[in-house]
Amino acid sequence: MSKRKLKVKYKIDPGLRGINVGTTEICPVGEEEIHLSYRGYLIEDLAMACTYEEVSHLLIHGELPNKYQLSEWSSQLSENRFFPKNLQRILDTLPKNTHPMSVLRTAISTLGTIEPEQGLEGKMQALRILGILPSIIGYWEKRRGSYDKEVPLGSSEDTIAGYLLHMINGEAPSTIDTQTMDTSLILYAEHEYAASTYAARVCASTLADYYSCITTAIGTLSGPLNGGANEAAIKLLLSFDNSDTAESKVRHMLRDKELVMGFGHAVYADHDPRSLIVKERARKLSNEKKEFSELFKIAEAVERVMREHNLFPNLDFYTATVYHILGINSHLFTPIFVVSRSSGWAAHVLEQRQNNKLIRPTAEYIGPKERVLPSLSERK
Amino acid sequence: MSKRKLKVKYKIDPGLRGINVGTTEICPVGEEEIHLSYRGYLIEDLAMACTYEEVSHLLIHGELPNKYQLSEWSSQLSENRFFPKNLQRILDTLPKNTHPMSVLRTAISTLGTIEPEQGLEGKMQALRILGILPSIIGYWEKRRGSYDKEVPLGSSEDTIAGYLLHMINGEAPSTIDTQTMDTSLILYAEHEYAASTYAARVCASTLADYYSCITTAIGTLSGPLNGGANEAAIKLLLSFDNSDTAESKVRHMLRDKELVMGFGHAVYADHDPRSLIVKERARKLSNEKKEFSELFKIAEAVERVMREHNLFPNLDFYTATVYHILGINSHLFTPIFVVSRSSGWAAHVLEQRQNNKLIRPTAEYIGPKERVLPSLSERK
Repeated sequence: MSKRKLKVKYKIDPGLRGINVGTTEICPVGEEEIHLSYRGYLIEDLAMACTYEEVSHLLIHGELPNKYQLSEWSSQLSENRFFPKNLQRILDTLPKNTHPMSVLRTAISTLGTIEPEQGLEGKMQALRILGILPSIIGYWEKRRGSYDKEVPLGSSEDTIAGYLLHMINGEAPSTIDTQTMDTSLILYAEHEYAASTYAARVCASTLADYYSCITTAIGTLSGPLNGGANEAAIKLLLSFDNSDTAESKVRHMLRDKELVMGFGHAVYADHDPRSLIVKERARKLSNEKKEFSELFKIAEAVERVMREHNLFPNLDFYTATVYHILGINSHLFTPIFVVSRSSGWAAHVLEQRQNNKLIRPTAEYIGPKERVLPSLSERK
Repeated sequence: MSKRKLKVKYKIDPGLRGINVGTTEICPVGEEEIHLSYRGYLIEDLAMACTYEEVSHLLIHGELPNKYQLSEWSSQLSENRFFPKNLQRILDTLPKNTHPMSVLRTAISTLGTIEPEQGLEGKMQALRILGILPSIIGYWEKRRGSYDKEVPLGSSEDTIAGYLLHMINGEAPSTIDTQTMDTSLILYAEHEYAASTYAARVCASTLADYYSCITTAIGTLSGPLNGGANEAAIKLLLSFDNSDTAESKVRHMLRDKELVMGFGHAVYADHDPRSLIVKERARKLSNEKKEFSELFKIAEAVERVMREHNLFPNLDFYTATVYHILGINSHLFTPIFVVSRSSGWAAHVLEQRQNNKLIRPTAEYIGPKERVLPSLSERK
């Protein structure tokens, strides 16, 4: 081996913004003249014609399921709602006021000790995690006292969206609620090298087990800069009495250079293709449930003002409205994101493993030059 | 906001090898004409003149402690050996055959629910985790049945190195054993943007809490390409009867293009400055404990053959020998790495937070072009 010069001497943006650090066959984001799609299917088509079960199969197994495969996949997902007793015991030991994202991180890490991955297959673990996540979320909602009824573990709801809503609220959801949640799960399922996904790929690149990768992803998504935007958006929307005051208050916020959450995107330049889809779901839902029609008007008013400043709503903005109308408390917004994105994470971990190279960058050193080590008594 | 063109159209190595993806003031690695140091102090000086307590203070607080600070820091570290009863109960619930890295990942994630970080201070959590890690490792060793004596939780050993050895073996260690472990902890404490550290920085960049960052780092380190090299190295060394057969067998391995673990490095071009230090510790230890003198000769023989092929031993190679002589089972090599590196991780998470930008790269899309979505009945 000859001496290599290992450091490339150009600097790149530490946020890696706009820099292709790898290739992917899963999802193009922000590429010129390529629309957002999952494995080639446009996001609009998937949201209109498919269920999240089909989309998760597409992401994890690489293709949309046929009729037989879909029925098989759906029943596997239902079987994997199973919530082991020792995991329940561990959750019962955690302090009741623990944030559900820390609960999820701990629960998935624990699941990896109870049902460890054998070899590096991953697909079985992806299925398992997708199946069990709503069980964990609902079990925790019940434990923290969100409802009195018995927790409907493994309920008869036959979709992930329906089961998730049932577990969260303790009540069987209506058809329109389930459909709306289903769309939301599709829209959040995958988004290329988002921070949580990239962290999972760095983890996978060491050939760590599947649970380490997903624990990493959940921990990373728990950060407010990655997963917290919709939580912040609903807080803002609910602070306005009506659309008129919303409009003037947002103008004031912009004048004072306050951050209005739910607008703009690290990768999209001028619009988020998912926003239009979820906005229409929000409109439909607020037409059905009249008590929320003012909330939708408020959201539209905020969007109007922001657009005057060339700022566009991202997926999180109208999703916040939708979740609120569905009766979901904002502390659950990011956990629902986990359910949805777990299929995208799976696709990326599997892709990373398939053609792996350890991700080991370097840093430009800007610290102190060589220093003489003072003895203990010499130190100030 | 005008339309931005967000994607830079050059490709970089997906392993990010040799690419500076950020700056750091903590540790230069592989830079031309800059020797390995922690915050400007040469690794050789630190290994010779300091304890791991001083080095962890240097990494976490930015400067070497003076006499007063060192005594304060040491007693804080001892106090933080405290192992909460509910965390013990949770560990008692995990299957006995769980790998200790999965135990550590789960334990630190759980600790984050019991003692959550308030705000984003981090330094208190860094201290807490550094203090408690040997307690967790030893408690688990006892639980998996590695020794019969009572687990010496919070023993009177006054250094991390001594306490760690006491907890692992159930017996108070000798002075030379403690000193050797101390050196090893110093050598592994920090190494710039290693995969586990970079994953922790990606996690920190979303402003996730400290426990999420360290859970991420532990999960990433658990991968055999990041943390597993010394485990593999000792397996190899123990497979040889003596130095003569070692030499000829390694020649055969090289001829058959088999991987010999513990040699070469992703960032160093021609030598690992830490290897010489730990080799001398291995030599000293094997002189003291004659029953291991052949093992040291075997290691030297392997090194000799590898050097003929211009391959140099990295830190892991002689560390494996040292740990074996200290009576440590190889499943604990990576958990010990966690104890050591936890101070480096702390330094990097704090540095990332201090001048944060969300790490959100992009990927080159090489997947299928736009496809027409087939209806369920049309799918093959």
